[in-house]
Amino acid sequence: MSKVKEKFRDRALPIRTRVNDLLSRMTLEEKVAQLRQDLYGWKCYQRDGDEVALTPYLTDYLAKTPGIGCLYGVFRADPWSQVTDETGIPSALSRDTAFRIQKQVMAANRFGIPALFVEEAPHGHQALGSVSYPINIGKGNSYDPALMEQMATQIRHEMAAKGVHIALVSTMDLARDPRWGRTEECLSEDGVIAAKYTEAIVKGFQGDLIYAGEDFLDQPVATHTTAQMGVVLKHVIGQGDTLGGHNSGSSIIGRRELLDIYGPLLHAARNAVGVMAAYNDIDGVPCHGNPWLLTDLLRKQNGFQGLIMADGSALDRLATNYTQPGLAARQALTAGVEESLWDELYPHLVEYVTAGLVPEALVDQAAFKILAIKFLLGVFDDPFKTPAAFDETHAQSVNLELAEESITMVKNTGILPLKTAAKIAVIGPSADNRYDLLGDYTAPQTAGQHSTIYQAIKAQYPASDVRYAKGCAIRDHEHQPQLLNEAVALAQASDVVILTLGGSSTRNFGMRFGKNGAVSSKGINMDSGENVDLASLALGGEQPALLEALAKTGKPMITIMVEGRPHELEQVLAKSAAVLLAWYPGQRGGDALAALISGQVAPSGHLNISYPRSAGQLPVYHNQRRNPAPDYYDEAKSPLLTLGTGLSYGETPVVERIQLDQTTVSKVTLQDGAKLQAMALVHNPNDTAATAVLLVATNGLTNNVVPRASHVVDFKRVTLAAHEQRQVTFTLEATAFQQTDFNYQPRLFEGPVTVSVNGQSAVFTIQ
Amino acid sequence: MSKVKEKFRDRALPIRTRVNDLLSRMTLEEKVAQLRQDLYGWKCYQRDGDEVALTPYLTDYLAKTPGIGCLYGVFRADPWSQVTDETGIPSALSRDTAFRIQKQVMAANRFGIPALFVEEAPHGHQALGSVSYPINIGKGNSYDPALMEQMATQIRHEMAAKGVHIALVSTMDLARDPRWGRTEECLSEDGVIAAKYTEAIVKGFQGDLIYAGEDFLDQPVATHTTAQMGVVLKHVIGQGDTLGGHNSGSSIIGRRELLDIYGPLLHAARNAVGVMAAYNDIDGVPCHGNPWLLTDLLRKQNGFQGLIMADGSALDRLATNYTQPGLAARQALTAGVEESLWDELYPHLVEYVTAGLVPEALVDQAAFKILAIKFLLGVFDDPFKTPAAFDETHAQSVNLELAEESITMVKNTGILPLKTAAKIAVIGPSADNRYDLLGDYTAPQTAGQHSTIYQAIKAQYPASDVRYAKGCAIRDHEHQPQLLNEAVALAQASDVVILTLGGSSTRNFGMRFGKNGAVSSKGINMDSGENVDLASLALGGEQPALLEALAKTGKPMITIMVEGRPHELEQVLAKSAAVLLAWYPGQRGGDALAALISGQVAPSGHLNISYPRSAGQLPVYHNQRRNPAPDYYDEAKSPLLTLGTGLSYGETPVVERIQLDQTTVSKVTLQDGAKLQAMALVHNPNDTAATAVLLVATNGLTNNVVPRASHVVDFKRVTLAAHEQRQVTFTLEATAFQQTDFNYQPRLFEGPVTVSVNGQSAVFTIQ
Repeated sequence: MSKVKEKFRDRALPIRTRVNDLLSRMTLEEKVAQLRQDLYGWKCYQRDGDEVALTPYLTDYLAKTPGIGCLYGVFRADPWSQVTDETGIPSALSRDTAFRIQKQVMAANRFGIPALFVEEAPHGHQALGSVSYPINIGKGNSYDPALMEQMATQIRHEMAAKGVHIALVSTMDLARDPRWGRTEECLSEDGVIAAKYTEAIVKGFQGDLIYAGEDFLDQPVATHTTAQMGVVLKHVIGQGDTLGGHNSGSSIIGRRELLDIYGPLLHAARNAVGVMAAYNDIDGVPCHGNPWLLTDLLRKQNGFQGLIMADGSALDRLATNYTQPGLAARQALTAGVEESLWDELYPHLVEYVTAGLVPEALVDQAAFKILAIKFLLGVFDDPFKTPAAFDETHAQSVNLELAEESITMVKNTGILPLKTAAKIAVIGPSADNRYDLLGDYTAPQTAGQHSTIYQAIKAQYPASDVRYAKGCAIRDHEHQPQLLNEAVALAQASDVVILTLGGSSTRNFGMRFGKNGAVSSKGINMDSGENVDLASLALGGEQPALLEALAKTGKPMITIMVEGRPHELEQVLAKSAAVLLAWYPGQRGGDALAALISGQVAPSGHLNISYPRSAGQLPVYHNQRRNPAPDYYDEAKSPLLTLGTGLSYGETPVVERIQLDQTTVSKVTLQDGAKLQAMALVHNPNDTAATAVLLVATNGLTNNVVPRASHVVDFKRVTLAAHEQRQVTFTLEATAFQQTDFNYQPRLFEGPVTVSVNGQSAVFTIQ
Repeated sequence: MSKVKEKFRDRALPIRTRVNDLLSRMTLEEKVAQLRQDLYGWKCYQRDGDEVALTPYLTDYLAKTPGIGCLYGVFRADPWSQVTDETGIPSALSRDTAFRIQKQVMAANRFGIPALFVEEAPHGHQALGSVSYPINIGKGNSYDPALMEQMATQIRHEMAAKGVHIALVSTMDLARDPRWGRTEECLSEDGVIAAKYTEAIVKGFQGDLIYAGEDFLDQPVATHTTAQMGVVLKHVIGQGDTLGGHNSGSSIIGRRELLDIYGPLLHAARNAVGVMAAYNDIDGVPCHGNPWLLTDLLRKQNGFQGLIMADGSALDRLATNYTQPGLAARQALTAGVEESLWDELYPHLVEYVTAGLVPEALVDQAAFKILAIKFLLGVFDDPFKTPAAFDETHAQSVNLELAEESITMVKNTGILPLKTAAKIAVIGPSADNRYDLLGDYTAPQTAGQHSTIYQAIKAQYPASDVRYAKGCAIRDHEHQPQLLNEAVALAQASDVVILTLGGSSTRNFGMRFGKNGAVSSKGINMDSGENVDLASLALGGEQPALLEALAKTGKPMITIMVEGRPHELEQVLAKSAAVLLAWYPGQRGGDALAALISGQVAPSGHLNISYPRSAGQLPVYHNQRRNPAPDYYDEAKSPLLTLGTGLSYGETPVVERIQLDQTTVSKVTLQDGAKLQAMALVHNPNDTAATAVLLVATNGLTNNVVPRASHVVDFKRVTLAAHEQRQVTFTLEATAFQQTDFNYQPRLFEGPVTVSVNGQSAVFTIQ
């Protein structure tokens, strides 16, 4: 075979040309290898003291397989992978290890095609020594996409420095049912709010690598790409909407619900290098086999050009719906799933093609995409690039700021800020625990990395006598009533009690896990996280008794909820002088709480979720359709705390009026892209600076479907100087004034439309 | 104007010809009058001792309106209508009153068009002196459509005797969320089961008036119609599937869920004279404005030719989604709603037509239908026909049998049957209460009509010392702890305790109601019924304390759940020696319970609903799609009691094997109507006769959508003689082997299909 000119190596050519050239040279086996992500990355090496050696696990695989599409979790460390501080890759050796693995991968195929290194980063890289940020359901309270972008940029630098190419980041799941153990991974219950965060996170992770809109395939590889990083957004879609809050279950929502609620998120994903399909089905169709969702809606309607990756073993699960696995593989490829993950399906594609079950063109199409991404990221051309240095100090300051903005105060009788107190009791199952502040998908934490709440409070009040008692565990009843009695005695001897209550997503090395990493045997004190769904939102174990006993001491209590999902809060609110919802606030969570409690920083978080009174009341998300039904006989219909709730130390800045720049807008101009400006006049009545979160909602009729009770279309976080009055402008377009109609098309409101911002409103007319 | 031959009076002509002729003579106002059901029937008369006089309410209306389409609730008596035993129409005067009203109606229009008299009959006619049967969620446990048909025939005779033409009967709602207060009106959680009952009920109500399939419009009025009765089935559709179990809320289910679960019910409705649209929306589209649902699916696909009636004030609610009411009216008519109910929409149709908002052709189409039904029922031709006599004694024997078959035993340590006991304590809030046995939509009950549970037990055990104590109320805490102490004392002095617990749908005359009759201000002890939704399924008020206190006496307890929805039952099961789920068993419920407890009759009820452990666990219906997710961390995933659960006094008859008449069936033959026979060999191991409920389920793959965890396709109730072995044959067709696919079409299973009956199974192949 004469060697024709290798166009695929010509950096001046458009990516499309290069990939097509490369594909034309590849065998079916070589192409299928690119669709495979079979390996557990952490098994590719063995740590031996300060050395890291590659293992036969990798070399044996490469001896049989001509290349690797993606390589998952080389740096992953946690109880599932059984990788510890002692057995994992130290930060300092990360890049070198990645390069050595990459060299092996490239050597295993004729074209030197590298693998993409794929890693989990739900709230920081799940690897030894990484920065761990607040969980999504916490940081969604910041209403600060700009800070979220900074965080993403820091994670990107940290991961790129280790040689990672793809960060797996949850942004697409919505917190529709708090029983779901992965509620902590959701940025909001609201798709519009989560979409704004998603765009910021994609921008932060991918920097200048924003390629949608222009067709990246028709360009040469950009030389200005500073980090070879892309983000794969999890999960497409509807995983938080499953029946009963059961993980990876069935979401029976209709298409209008899907388009209204999840449409903005699918649009926000358009610039991401990839998305991961969701385990659930939507109205019976598994996301992994849904061409309408992945191809028509995501790609064609929203312009997404990235890679679609399977979730772990999800293609095997898809295959359980088919009489032959080859038919499932064909369906997944047809739907648009291009990269597998630990399944037994795509590894057999050669057989399926040979048997005539899968057209080779489907394999080509998928291989094209994964190769195109390798070109796009510069990994093909320059697999051993030196990235920008990672500044951990700066990252931790972003982390602290994000924690401060995430934590949400929902009650304060005036006890906060706590300027001084002679004797402070810090009590609670998570009060002196670092892991409980971090959420699921967390790497082992080496000693001294960050403060517990107790440690941070002690440091914040050097003149006070700060003492700790555990009181009880999250769930178990060990050492009772001793722990409780100790806590009560401490409280009685103190001037004020800082109490932590809530849940825990802390895994331990004794647990058992499913093939996909989800918890299958739960630790008694882990009551949240993947596959840890709850039927009751009541506080677990002895926590209600602890709350009750401490309240009886009559000492003022500042209660901090450390949690990954909402819990029943009515008793907590009734018995506490102040309540802070900290969620899992990350490594700097203790410091952030100390700063907030002392008044060094004022609380500014506002809820991104409607906080229910109990599981029996679900769902309570704000954007249900209007329904005149009364309260339950035995319970209110409204949530305990509405979306947007959040107090600070002064008065809440007030929106004094809204003005619109137009009184009438025609449908046609709106459909052609016309915009409406809504100007909110905000006033800070305080003698100090104050932060407001402005939530914009619209309300109108489509003459077609039932309107939603609440329809948030935009938000801004603004910080005002003392007594400042400021006009804040929102630019709204057609998407702010429409709902999905009978025919599953967006339909504009007709007639009068109300635009409201924090209680003030103005009306214009669409005609 | 010369008088042309009045074809509409010619009984020999087809209905279509006659109606078209009549319509062609009618003014717009006259046609619109036929679409109106504005009046509250009970206001049309005034009772004065033994006399009933017509009121200006009726005559004033007719002075302004040339006719009436339907007249609702002339005989309705209940707290909403404020009609009492003293102010309502005595049974003996019913027909005469109806005729006098009818004469007025006919005189008010040029053609002598009569009104259809429409009445509620959810579990018997909601009128003074009527027979009140078990509620649907109870009688669904009978798995006895034949008996259900007998019941419907009895209700038909009873109503026809009074001059009623249309019975409003709930059969279309499914019990998908027990928080919903109208769960009691559902025949099952399962659409296939409810569909079989629906067909039986339609047959029972309409007798020989089964007209679908043949086009009744092309026939003359049948002369063999024995009763001028038709049934309007409530509600189309999905009202039990609303978010949070909130009444009349939003059902966000997708089309596949709707077609799979509700499709069989829509098919079963095809022979009914009418259906009532449901308050809820489905995925945003209100049922009252949904042409896909009412016209495409119900009429075109399922051959329904009947009338579609609005629910009370539902069209006003539809109008809240529109900028102009005329647009809502047009939408409702376009969707196929032909008859209004108390709304302000259709009464204004003349204005809307005049203003050009509603095409007159839509009014014609609706008027055509209501007139055609008046012809079909023979009401036009013979409005004062004398019906068959009603035999109340026979009706009450059917009622008793139905109650006996409805009540379901779910635990028995051997205490039952209770052959004898010296001292029996009958305790509980509903133990000596007649109304609590009847459910919502019940007329006032005159004294002596039926026994309470206590009275029936006392009568059943004449040799025993049977005493009663209330123990507590359903919800309120009055007279506590006195009532509880009395109950405990009685229990201690007795040999056995028969305890009633549960809920109540008993309305009283002090309550307030919405315009549509739903409860708006709830009585403290009414915790079930329309608009009485619950967030918690725990037993109310002092009931848990009563259970606990009685259990502590150590006396054996037989607990009877009197309820309209499932309650948390774990403690009840743990503390009772036997548990009978009686639901609201109707007027003969006390007698039925006495017969069952004494062993005079053996229990044979089997649950038509999956009984949850708590509200936090919902939904638990059996036909969710398959999901490998594990249990909740804090609770099982499975219901407490599965669909089909039910014990009797002997051993449960056993299905020994299943045989299929074919091993392979081709898709094409199935689609062409081929049938598969499944023969179950059932054996009664007892020395006495025994009843078995055989539930047939199928299981297969469509190579398309996710299969359901459980898929019931047929059932039979069979009573076997002592030691009898019998082959029971089920004839299954394509509908038993399909699911709704990606494209919303039915798709047959492919490959091996399992057919199972009560734990035994056999496999055949579809190819």
